[in-house]
Amino acid sequence: MSKLIGNAVFGQSGGPTSVINASAAGVFTEALKQTGVINKVYGAAHGIVGILNEIFYDMGQEDPAELELLKTTPSSALGSCRYKLADLEDDETDYKRLLDVFKKYDIRYFFYNGGNDSMDTCNKISKYLQQSGYECRVMGVPKTIDNDLFGTDHCPGFASAAKYIATTIMEVYLDARVYDTGMITVIEIMGRHAGWLAASAALAAHKGYGPDLIYLPEIDFDLETMLTDVKRIYEKEKKVIIAVSEGVQTKDGKFIPELVGTVATDAFGHKQLGGTASVLADYLKEKIGCKVRGIELSLMQRCAAHLASQTDVDESFLAGQTAVRCAVDGMTDFMVGFQRPESGPYQCDIKLIPLNEVANTESMVPREWINAEGNFVNQKFIEYALPLIQGESKIAIEDGLPRFARLKKVRVKLD
Amino acid sequence: MSKLIGNAVFGQSGGPTSVINASAAGVFTEALKQTGVINKVYGAAHGIVGILNEIFYDMGQEDPAELELLKTTPSSALGSCRYKLADLEDDETDYKRLLDVFKKYDIRYFFYNGGNDSMDTCNKISKYLQQSGYECRVMGVPKTIDNDLFGTDHCPGFASAAKYIATTIMEVYLDARVYDTGMITVIEIMGRHAGWLAASAALAAHKGYGPDLIYLPEIDFDLETMLTDVKRIYEKEKKVIIAVSEGVQTKDGKFIPELVGTVATDAFGHKQLGGTASVLADYLKEKIGCKVRGIELSLMQRCAAHLASQTDVDESFLAGQTAVRCAVDGMTDFMVGFQRPESGPYQCDIKLIPLNEVANTESMVPREWINAEGNFVNQKFIEYALPLIQGESKIAIEDGLPRFARLKKVRVKLD
Repeated sequence: MSKLIGNAVFGQSGGPTSVINASAAGVFTEALKQTGVINKVYGAAHGIVGILNEIFYDMGQEDPAELELLKTTPSSALGSCRYKLADLEDDETDYKRLLDVFKKYDIRYFFYNGGNDSMDTCNKISKYLQQSGYECRVMGVPKTIDNDLFGTDHCPGFASAAKYIATTIMEVYLDARVYDTGMITVIEIMGRHAGWLAASAALAAHKGYGPDLIYLPEIDFDLETMLTDVKRIYEKEKKVIIAVSEGVQTKDGKFIPELVGTVATDAFGHKQLGGTASVLADYLKEKIGCKVRGIELSLMQRCAAHLASQTDVDESFLAGQTAVRCAVDGMTDFMVGFQRPESGPYQCDIKLIPLNEVANTESMVPREWINAEGNFVNQKFIEYALPLIQGESKIAIEDGLPRFARLKKVRVKLD
Repeated sequence: MSKLIGNAVFGQSGGPTSVINASAAGVFTEALKQTGVINKVYGAAHGIVGILNEIFYDMGQEDPAELELLKTTPSSALGSCRYKLADLEDDETDYKRLLDVFKKYDIRYFFYNGGNDSMDTCNKISKYLQQSGYECRVMGVPKTIDNDLFGTDHCPGFASAAKYIATTIMEVYLDARVYDTGMITVIEIMGRHAGWLAASAALAAHKGYGPDLIYLPEIDFDLETMLTDVKRIYEKEKKVIIAVSEGVQTKDGKFIPELVGTVATDAFGHKQLGGTASVLADYLKEKIGCKVRGIELSLMQRCAAHLASQTDVDESFLAGQTAVRCAVDGMTDFMVGFQRPESGPYQCDIKLIPLNEVANTESMVPREWINAEGNFVNQKFIEYALPLIQGESKIAIEDGLPRFARLKKVRVKLD
């Protein structure tokens, strides 16, 4: 296999996570080591938007200590995007532009970090470069708190969100039991189509401080059935905690907030949800009459780096590092994925998945991991998720508060 | 001074905090050491409600390791209450009952942990026992995330909430800057009357990742003025973060949700008063037209023990321990308070404050710590708050999740 010499670019795309920058650290530190193969390591501002606009940062000029701090810096250090590439047959403009930029900057390694939509983008670019005869190794680096990428055992970002959700629910569980009066708490968790994150609430229950009910998008949601569930528990316990995915839908396809009014959509046509907890809280308050509190875990569940899983940090870094190593070794058109042994102790092994298989296919919580009533997950989910949340990320602290990475972001200027 | 021999009771009252149980640990471990003076150490279930109903736990039967874990267990391990004692001249029933129970259980030491209302309760009981000629040493142990207790430099519970708020806002700050599109984030923080917690958002700004605007209940809130503030920043930066206390009021005394109280009705046919953040978010979305997200820090800000300030944990323990030591030394009718040196490095010194001075007096953020425009706090607040959030509480972890204290709660049964 011939050695491909040129520059590398890395971009971040889609919603951020607590550990997306750990993958960036993996890509950058590994790519910077590949002297003689990778000449320059560029970071694209706001994913492919930065490539289209030629906004690149020269990562070789960053302080290595700051790149190390990326491991514990949440969100997207380079900026992200939700830019949707048109289908090639409909409009070639962006593709031509990307190819021109790749040529101009001699980009021979392209690493793209994101979820389903981003892997679709990555796949489209990969195929276009191939059919244009431009040699470039393209590798997807997985990322999504939603954990719904196809072909991988789990996704970087999921475990830290799961750890945040489980820990927070354990704490809220105690808080919600303080008074000797009735109280219902509805906790809204992210997850547009897949219920992995909402299911993570079961980890709190596994430790004895969890929700009574968990509603996932995998199961048709019915308001009356939920009310029956809640009443049964409330009459016995006077305390009920409900974990609900923002993505639950009634069997005629309505999201909970849609029971109240219209909801906005984003560039991909995805509905912008939120408000599920407050709608359900209002409903239960009226029907049961006790104190009800709706809590939305909001952005915190995807940016709480102070509570990240060290396993997740390490694996996110590994995903980035592996993408570079594989590309340098001649592989292209894959996403880095994870697999674990069929039995025995948890171990994270690498698995490469063709990009076209990943693009736009979603992975759901298996039906057999959900109880018959469709309002909780079983031991299989616990066995799956528990190893992923092990270890506490050690964030750098300065003055009692996080010390995040400070990048110089030196703009690349060709002339 | 004569040695007073008898039993001790400790109760928790009012809204819980991340560290209220650290004070419980301080009271219990110190009281259990006072052999020959304090015979039995009781915990009252749900504060004075438990005393009135004779629901006491024998704390001497708890595993010392579990009492140690109380330091990092949030919420109220014994249960709390919001029971308001009538004024003595209006109704003596509860007082007589309390006196009977104190006599029956030979309670000679009474420690009560709470905020303003609880110190009022504590004061009333103290005075009643005195005028009844029943010898009992009564000590208040301060507790409130609101930080509004009179006479003390600060209150146990505040610093951990402040550390949670500042850390979370730093993380959300990064998340809210991910896309290259306009975005306004409104973060709602607890504090019905005093703005100490909302002001803590300034600690995040001090580190460079904070809100642009902070609105406190100490300053009359004006919607138009806020809009002008937000527009000015938005036009320049395209990103605005607003920290707002749930307790802000217009100059004619209206809370934010009351400004739109009659506007929306939900699917279930009743008024959606909404939270402060969501009301302001809706308003700004309409006026400015960009993406706006309202975030309520909800219960998490008062129960996130995983992110507690070690300084706060230590001081909360100290407050409980000191209450016992002072009472055994003959003091009564005081609340334990804190003071710091006028100058030089931070140090937490003990100060005893007569209960009748504390009861029902609130401490506000000084006007001179707030900027002239009334939309931020200045360096004086930072100097005040920063020492309090130092140190990271080391919570016990089991399986990647918190290991909270598990009390046996052995009920006390006389004869």
